[in-house]
Amino acid sequence: MQEQIVRIGLAGLGTVGGGLAEILRNNAEWIQKRIGKRIQIAKVLVRDLDKDRDVPPPPEAELTNSIEGLVRDPDLDIVVELIGGEEAAYRLISMALEEGKSVVTANKALLAEHGPELFQLAAERGAGLAFEASVAGGVPIVKTLKDSLAGNRIKSLTGILNGTDNYILSEMTSRGISFQEALEKAQELGYAEADPSLDVDGYDAAHKLTVLIRLASGKDYPYAELPVHGIRGIEAYDIDWAKAFGYQIKLIAQVKDRSGSLQAGVFPALIPEEDMLAKVDGPFNAVLLEGDAVGPIMLYGQGAGDLPTGSAVLSDIMDLAGSCSGASNSGFVNSAMERADILPAELTVCRHYFRFTVQDRPGVLSVLSGIMGEHNISIAQVVQKQEQNGEAVPVVFLTHAAQLKDVHNALAEIDKLSFIKARTRHHRIL
Amino acid sequence: MQEQIVRIGLAGLGTVGGGLAEILRNNAEWIQKRIGKRIQIAKVLVRDLDKDRDVPPPPEAELTNSIEGLVRDPDLDIVVELIGGEEAAYRLISMALEEGKSVVTANKALLAEHGPELFQLAAERGAGLAFEASVAGGVPIVKTLKDSLAGNRIKSLTGILNGTDNYILSEMTSRGISFQEALEKAQELGYAEADPSLDVDGYDAAHKLTVLIRLASGKDYPYAELPVHGIRGIEAYDIDWAKAFGYQIKLIAQVKDRSGSLQAGVFPALIPEEDMLAKVDGPFNAVLLEGDAVGPIMLYGQGAGDLPTGSAVLSDIMDLAGSCSGASNSGFVNSAMERADILPAELTVCRHYFRFTVQDRPGVLSVLSGIMGEHNISIAQVVQKQEQNGEAVPVVFLTHAAQLKDVHNALAEIDKLSFIKARTRHHRIL
Repeated sequence: MQEQIVRIGLAGLGTVGGGLAEILRNNAEWIQKRIGKRIQIAKVLVRDLDKDRDVPPPPEAELTNSIEGLVRDPDLDIVVELIGGEEAAYRLISMALEEGKSVVTANKALLAEHGPELFQLAAERGAGLAFEASVAGGVPIVKTLKDSLAGNRIKSLTGILNGTDNYILSEMTSRGISFQEALEKAQELGYAEADPSLDVDGYDAAHKLTVLIRLASGKDYPYAELPVHGIRGIEAYDIDWAKAFGYQIKLIAQVKDRSGSLQAGVFPALIPEEDMLAKVDGPFNAVLLEGDAVGPIMLYGQGAGDLPTGSAVLSDIMDLAGSCSGASNSGFVNSAMERADILPAELTVCRHYFRFTVQDRPGVLSVLSGIMGEHNISIAQVVQKQEQNGEAVPVVFLTHAAQLKDVHNALAEIDKLSFIKARTRHHRIL
Repeated sequence: MQEQIVRIGLAGLGTVGGGLAEILRNNAEWIQKRIGKRIQIAKVLVRDLDKDRDVPPPPEAELTNSIEGLVRDPDLDIVVELIGGEEAAYRLISMALEEGKSVVTANKALLAEHGPELFQLAAERGAGLAFEASVAGGVPIVKTLKDSLAGNRIKSLTGILNGTDNYILSEMTSRGISFQEALEKAQELGYAEADPSLDVDGYDAAHKLTVLIRLASGKDYPYAELPVHGIRGIEAYDIDWAKAFGYQIKLIAQVKDRSGSLQAGVFPALIPEEDMLAKVDGPFNAVLLEGDAVGPIMLYGQGAGDLPTGSAVLSDIMDLAGSCSGASNSGFVNSAMERADILPAELTVCRHYFRFTVQDRPGVLSVLSGIMGEHNISIAQVVQKQEQNGEAVPVVFLTHAAQLKDVHNALAEIDKLSFIKARTRHHRIL
């Protein structure tokens, strides 16, 4: 019997591309045992043909610096897009799909912005478009939503989707260091980019959440409309206070189905220490789902890195190389997705954490709780701390469930008061 | 366009069958949106046609009391086996596969005993044999091993696979009650059967582990050769001691790849409280995997119950009803599996917990640690407790890594000593 070979055109030989090549090299025999075929990186798209490379291309692979040379090569079975960014990746993927070539991508930013359009194109051309690696690295959350929980309506999904942010917050929590210090350490270790904005301002988590919302709900929640708050403003002091109350601060990406409307967002939140999500430390990712049939399910693992993300890319390649063809890429028969009915974040009802910085004088607590009361915010716990020096003291409130809109209105009023000495810190409690 | 219908022949309308029917009823429209087809329970196999039923059969379904009437019905597309047990289920599944009909089953006992043979038959007839629901209820561990981590060599797999046992141990831990009391509570709540042996003696976890070992390693580890220890012998007193040292006792199903040989077993073990697995409480299940590429991955969720297990059955039905046909059932191209090379449990090297019950007299510690030393067991921590009444006192040792064989030899020697007043309690530490 002739050996069956699946020929891969790989765009981008960076961290993940190198990881993929390494797994294919180490586990070639095993993969053949699984799918009965050999997977070969036959062509690699690089920017510069003559450059010295950190990751050496697989010896069998031909190099090209032309997108057309990759996607139009009739000898290639699957195109793997790992160049990242939006413009070139968009051009590459849409050209490949136009050719009827199946594509595997890890590009969450591109999917967040152009997903529906690309799924439509793939459906028209009968091509596969697989993206397990786009969310949570090696954690198989995409297939879990598409396949394993396909018969469930997902009532809520709560994720820790950015390992860099989680690493920074874990470091701040365990070592009591500042955001800036933790960020610099993350940059030293290669967890954070020189320009960390995509991570620390929450956009990367928002890209991933956008991808997951589609899989979970079958609706498109436009990325541009997602409320996003990052972790830049988190102070070590608030992490300590949260700890004292039995909470950990994590950057959360969340969507809830409220009678068919979707309430979603990316925001830092206090998580009770006994929750499984609170145990997700360092660069790890996790997704906690609530399905109407399956109940709560949690998946946990490494959200980034060459081999974990390479593992996810490979699982997509093996699916496409296997006997499943024309399976629905988006997880739904009709790839033209309705737009989600969006419930504004301001209508979110949850518990809250406030840290006021007040001038220590009589009546302060009564004024604060009075304003809270006027805005329907009921207080669960209060701690006022006696500071040694100066007259500004912290007062921390934990509230019962209250609407975000009421909270913002109350804070706007409170922060104008003369005895308030610094902007009030506010976080949601999960 | 004519509506496409997938006709299910359902064998067994008990808890899981009822759960499946309920999800199909509640989420019919949603499922159609996912796969473009309607799933209909068209025929139900029952023992007695005239009996009053707790779970009413779906109104459209025809009833039959003949296995042949179900598996030979040419109008049925998929047979779902939920009758449990071995003999009738074996006959039903093999007849259905002989007919070339795809089968979905939740029957771990049957798969543990007859899996390789049934996969072989399915492969010969080109039929599907899907079994997501056989392990860990709604937790998608089967598909994760078969698909999502297919390119990984699995270095180890550690599971909490029996919700009943985990519930009993959790109750003993949180409420300080005895095994017997916790078992009775589990029976009242319907978590445990009147004859609890399958659960508490570890056989159910061993069935599930057998299924997972095949998926993870591609080798068959015969169920009959798996070392199995249940939780019947666990005393509340040891749970308290474990807690004092910072551990939880859980029933663990584990396989490790030791240079190609497999070391596997079901046994209670002490788990450090900070580990994710230690957080798995009550009737929940979890599986922690270590893949060579993906690193550590954990899946967590409900391991039993009508809707969670129904959700897993439904995901298999949706897969088979979708466009994937002839995909490998076992996760490997060649369904004739090699037998695993088994590394005896006696060669396991790990840390250990001992509780000796000794007569309180001088020299006891020195004799105990002397015998340990002769058997290459090095001691990490010792606590001797002063008891109020009587002369028998507990002495607890935590050891460094030592071989199980050495431990058994040392204990055999120790338990013959005149100052040992009760059988020594021994557990492994994970």
